[in-house]
Amino acid sequence: MDKLIILKIGGNVIDNPPVLEAVLRDFATWQAHKILVHGGGKIASKLMERLGIMPKMVEGRRITDRETLDIVTMVYAGLINKNMVATLQTHACNAIGLTGADANLIPAAKRPVKDIDYGYVGDLNFDCISADMLVNLLKSGLVPVLAPITHDGAGSLLNTNADTIASSVAIALAKFFRVQLTFCFEKQGVLRDPNDEQSVIDFLDKDMFQQYKNEGIITAGMIPKLDNAFVALQNGVEEVRICSPNSLHEGTRIQMFMATSVKYL
Amino acid sequence: MDKLIILKIGGNVIDNPPVLEAVLRDFATWQAHKILVHGGGKIASKLMERLGIMPKMVEGRRITDRETLDIVTMVYAGLINKNMVATLQTHACNAIGLTGADANLIPAAKRPVKDIDYGYVGDLNFDCISADMLVNLLKSGLVPVLAPITHDGAGSLLNTNADTIASSVAIALAKFFRVQLTFCFEKQGVLRDPNDEQSVIDFLDKDMFQQYKNEGIITAGMIPKLDNAFVALQNGVEEVRICSPNSLHEGTRIQMFMATSVKYL
Repeated sequence: MDKLIILKIGGNVIDNPPVLEAVLRDFATWQAHKILVHGGGKIASKLMERLGIMPKMVEGRRITDRETLDIVTMVYAGLINKNMVATLQTHACNAIGLTGADANLIPAAKRPVKDIDYGYVGDLNFDCISADMLVNLLKSGLVPVLAPITHDGAGSLLNTNADTIASSVAIALAKFFRVQLTFCFEKQGVLRDPNDEQSVIDFLDKDMFQQYKNEGIITAGMIPKLDNAFVALQNGVEEVRICSPNSLHEGTRIQMFMATSVKYL
Repeated sequence: MDKLIILKIGGNVIDNPPVLEAVLRDFATWQAHKILVHGGGKIASKLMERLGIMPKMVEGRRITDRETLDIVTMVYAGLINKNMVATLQTHACNAIGLTGADANLIPAAKRPVKDIDYGYVGDLNFDCISADMLVNLLKSGLVPVLAPITHDGAGSLLNTNADTIASSVAIALAKFFRVQLTFCFEKQGVLRDPNDEQSVIDFLDKDMFQQYKNEGIITAGMIPKLDNAFVALQNGVEEVRICSPNSLHEGTRIQMFMATSVKYL
């Protein structure tokens, strides 16, 4: 099977143009099928501020009302996505910028109203993803650049978490490729000591994760991220990597099991 | 050869949601390969107004400075394009929203500065269009929805006339399909009497166009539109149609020559 690398970048990259440029330049050189998934960053909030639109919050959670949906559609699927595509094209990377509505790639469901009505927010399941169409685009030599916008199949776009898109797409494509899923975030990797960027844990498997949790080394914020990583691995993704924009080829490598021969040396 | 219909819609459709919905619903039913090309409409100007950005005009011509480029990218490639895609998806039309930067479909050149610096405006030539990639998308069952944004291949997006995109794409694909290019505009078609919407000229060929021009029946605004239509026909497009959103299957049919058997009846 061919290799596929899925790189997810978030606000810390998008809001920093020189870092973004460096990440895109590096990404463009990777010799494998690849997909870039991007989040939003602060541009949408800044635009809302300029337009005098108050962010709607309920119990500390941001709500995507109609007006906010229009803003994030403009900023994520328009401004950010298309400028990334234009930049990748200069590096001989044949990028194609898409949302989950395009080619019906990622149908989602508007989050049901329970205690909070989140508005136009999409939840999705990996088995709804149009994997065949993504495979078709990849095999045509294209590099999909996915904005964090999906649709409900009933005419509405939906604001959707980019981490969720990245891991769902990774799982959906694990039948077709050996998938490496890389989350680029603000730390150098999973750290033994959150205050020491040098303390990167190079490799994690399920047992080691459990052990580090028991020992209180991996805590709080990292646990849901790693839980999600192991969900992806459990569903066929070969490797998850957590790294920073300046160390895309380093950081923490996460696999279900360390190859026995290595583990018990 | 298979048939391909390219429909271009402009501001008069985009700015009128019920009309837009009706056009998209109709378009979705067409049983042929098809491409939708859309212009901008007034949403970008309204957003600029809300943001307190003054339109830059030089000698009566609108200038696309950096800030304006960002706005049109957000509105055309984001808001308008993605909402159209989501709507088409509800009508079982597998739309994929793209700019000319995506998959390097439409490389363009920033308009050279002569008397006026138009800023980030793209001019293009049909022989630069990535026809093979468009064919590939069409043969995959996709329906490209093209926003009026291209790129210069050096990292910058460019604001580009949608009529030009539509006719250039039509010409570029004429080697692969029998292409019908339909311009949807505010009149019922080419009119004998500009004040009488009933006076539609059903059919025009090159000779008839010349004759109507000589007789002063076709004047002013229509002449450049029809000149462009004949350029498309001269370059292999089978038929150009000019019609209104409420008569997509009527209006004025334009071909290079009327089939002899019909013409001399």
